[in-house]
Amino acid sequence: MEAKLLLVDEVRLTPILISDPPLLNVQGVHQPFTPRLVVEVVTRGGVVGLGETYGDGVYLETARSLAEALPGRPVTHVNSLFEPVTKAVAGAVAGAVSGAGAARPEAGAGVDASGLRGVRTAAKLRLSVVSAFETACLDALGKTLGLPVHALLGGKVRDEVEYSAYLFHRWAAHPGAGGPADDWGAALDPAGVVAQARRFARTYGFRSFKLKGGVLDPEREVAAIRALAEAFPGHPLRLDPNGAWSVATSLAVARALEDVLEYLEDPASGTAAMAEVAAGTGVPLATNMCVTTFEEIPEAFARGAVRIVLCDHHYWGGLHRTRELAALCRTYGVGLSMHSNTHLGISLAAMTQVAATLPGLTHASDTHYPWQTEDVVTPRPVFRDGRLPVSDAPGLGVELDRPALEALHRRWLDDDGRMRDRDDTAAMRAADPEWRPRRW
Amino acid sequence: MEAKLLLVDEVRLTPILISDPPLLNVQGVHQPFTPRLVVEVVTRGGVVGLGETYGDGVYLETARSLAEALPGRPVTHVNSLFEPVTKAVAGAVAGAVSGAGAARPEAGAGVDASGLRGVRTAAKLRLSVVSAFETACLDALGKTLGLPVHALLGGKVRDEVEYSAYLFHRWAAHPGAGGPADDWGAALDPAGVVAQARRFARTYGFRSFKLKGGVLDPEREVAAIRALAEAFPGHPLRLDPNGAWSVATSLAVARALEDVLEYLEDPASGTAAMAEVAAGTGVPLATNMCVTTFEEIPEAFARGAVRIVLCDHHYWGGLHRTRELAALCRTYGVGLSMHSNTHLGISLAAMTQVAATLPGLTHASDTHYPWQTEDVVTPRPVFRDGRLPVSDAPGLGVELDRPALEALHRRWLDDDGRMRDRDDTAAMRAADPEWRPRRW
Repeated sequence: MEAKLLLVDEVRLTPILISDPPLLNVQGVHQPFTPRLVVEVVTRGGVVGLGETYGDGVYLETARSLAEALPGRPVTHVNSLFEPVTKAVAGAVAGAVSGAGAARPEAGAGVDASGLRGVRTAAKLRLSVVSAFETACLDALGKTLGLPVHALLGGKVRDEVEYSAYLFHRWAAHPGAGGPADDWGAALDPAGVVAQARRFARTYGFRSFKLKGGVLDPEREVAAIRALAEAFPGHPLRLDPNGAWSVATSLAVARALEDVLEYLEDPASGTAAMAEVAAGTGVPLATNMCVTTFEEIPEAFARGAVRIVLCDHHYWGGLHRTRELAALCRTYGVGLSMHSNTHLGISLAAMTQVAATLPGLTHASDTHYPWQTEDVVTPRPVFRDGRLPVSDAPGLGVELDRPALEALHRRWLDDDGRMRDRDDTAAMRAADPEWRPRRW
Repeated sequence: MEAKLLLVDEVRLTPILISDPPLLNVQGVHQPFTPRLVVEVVTRGGVVGLGETYGDGVYLETARSLAEALPGRPVTHVNSLFEPVTKAVAGAVAGAVSGAGAARPEAGAGVDASGLRGVRTAAKLRLSVVSAFETACLDALGKTLGLPVHALLGGKVRDEVEYSAYLFHRWAAHPGAGGPADDWGAALDPAGVVAQARRFARTYGFRSFKLKGGVLDPEREVAAIRALAEAFPGHPLRLDPNGAWSVATSLAVARALEDVLEYLEDPASGTAAMAEVAAGTGVPLATNMCVTTFEEIPEAFARGAVRIVLCDHHYWGGLHRTRELAALCRTYGVGLSMHSNTHLGISLAAMTQVAATLPGLTHASDTHYPWQTEDVVTPRPVFRDGRLPVSDAPGLGVELDRPALEALHRRWLDDDGRMRDRDDTAAMRAADPEWRPRRW
């Protein structure tokens, strides 16, 4: 191995727009098309490593700064992606997040309408961008060495990773013309949710079910979970209203569902409210909102606010940092699951590779992937018995479908700007101009 | 890269006895010869990876069980060294530690007379053995791939690692005949300690100084630190009595030295006492005794018992776990330094490689290495300006000196059993049959 072959020669950034169904959440509805960013790190040895992250303008700007700083650095040196390089782009990030419609930097109290990831800060944005570069570097390194990414993280401790079905209240179709269509139909009541779950179970074999909540009145969402419990007795069930409920409502839901819930995810918003809910129920609370950075861990753990943390390599800054989060959870006796936002096959491969290395991954991982009808990798991964096999092929084990990437990029280029920043609230207001996010 | 070339073909275990000077500590005096264990992991590709750990009988027995389980496993899969393999050897460990003179298994309250590492348990012994296997696997992997070990851990974030001088009260020579001799002379008063420090500074360029305490009356050790502060104004100074002091004594020493100490290491024994000391002084407390496993972290951090943790890849189960410890410390705002026990160049290389990857390593690392006149690697590492360069050579960057290894192994074979288990108290009693460990 000549060391110079492992130096970064070029970084390619390709923003794309991908089809997304009209899935409902507390912030509104998924847009017909949602932005993602594909990162290609090309080594001097000619190997291409892949990464994927959020594609909104503020992420893209940050990625451009990082991409300029990467050539000449070895793909092995992912630890230092957090130091010199991120310092160089700090200015760009601060500028980007202060732009119109964007969230506030570090000290800001902005709530991310797209990612539903709690308070949005420049530091979090930067981590999400670094994660894609780290993944791409590890993919390139693995492909160069002939080793799977999991072997670059100390090796897998399991051969398959279990995923859960991600159930949504949804419309049959996007409002207006021109959006993508599918044959799932609407799901706006318990029967619709159960039908969706049955199709997920039949098609992919999922055994765990997560319902995105915070959409209907809490009693209607309780009824949906009850219906799932009847349809799938003994199966792990989760409900996630993205912090939409008061402490009192959260406790009422927990009481109503305490015999059937695997966990309740982010019923209330913020560590203080979560701690209050946790003190009042035996139902385990999980989060991907009040614990999304290392800085947020000590208070949340000290207050017993959560019993399960949902890791997400996009949030935490990559695969190495996800392993560090897992070590923190193990040390503090906190369970570990995995979060997902709308993503494609590159991120799914990264999720599967890192999940394979985590001994304490005690719950099936979330994934939006089955909702995605488009992808930039080939062949597309296939869930069997709710699981994906852990690839032992070099790198992430996925190959870029360049024509597909180019077509999705063309859609991004052709967009008039309305879809380039995900905004579920704006998408909802296209149907109902008076709509506002609700709290219960 | 053919995957089968990375499978373990054979594991060689070589117990050795190495010369050690008559260094004093709270448990007694270093033996003339101390046991270490050299682990060689040989891949089917014919590459030899090196690891080093404690060599006492109980470690050797555990290592033998692990060595039997390793062939056929890939050297990439170090995460799973903690699961299936360690389960297989659990019985062997339990048997080994229940032997005469050894400490108790998991639940036991035995204090390790040799390692000065707090309560000794089967789990800790196992981690120390696994650490040598993990290091050897990573060395073999790095040598196979042509990559330094730090690149297998995400890459270095610095090009040099700073070490501190490790000062000891000591005798000029071992009692009795047959022990190794050196020209350092005795150091049993402040002048002797300062002379030792001057020689360390002159020879190796160390800027930080750590004095092993718990040997003389505390006021005499305070006087030694005062003398060092006068001789080396502004230099980082540390004092480590290995938990030999009461809370009152610890606080009195802290008061007496608060203007000159970088940190006070394990003044009192156990998390409760350390927390009490911490509450009564502004001098930062460091530890390698009350926080030596992940299980011990939550209570110690919650009680504010320590502001600096000394990592040690032997204690924590290897290089990956050391990085996880570092992440825990970063997350909780706890500083990080590095502990050492008597060790050779294999461990020094491993310490340097992992230290190079830790962004939060905020203090110079401890090392006994300059006291060692023998080694099993060639060429021997050389400290300049108190630092070691971070090797970018494949693996750990050290080569085994097989004739030296064989000679030291012959010494172990020829030993009548008196030196094969390190026992500083027994060594002290050879000089003074009435001697007992003291507490102040």
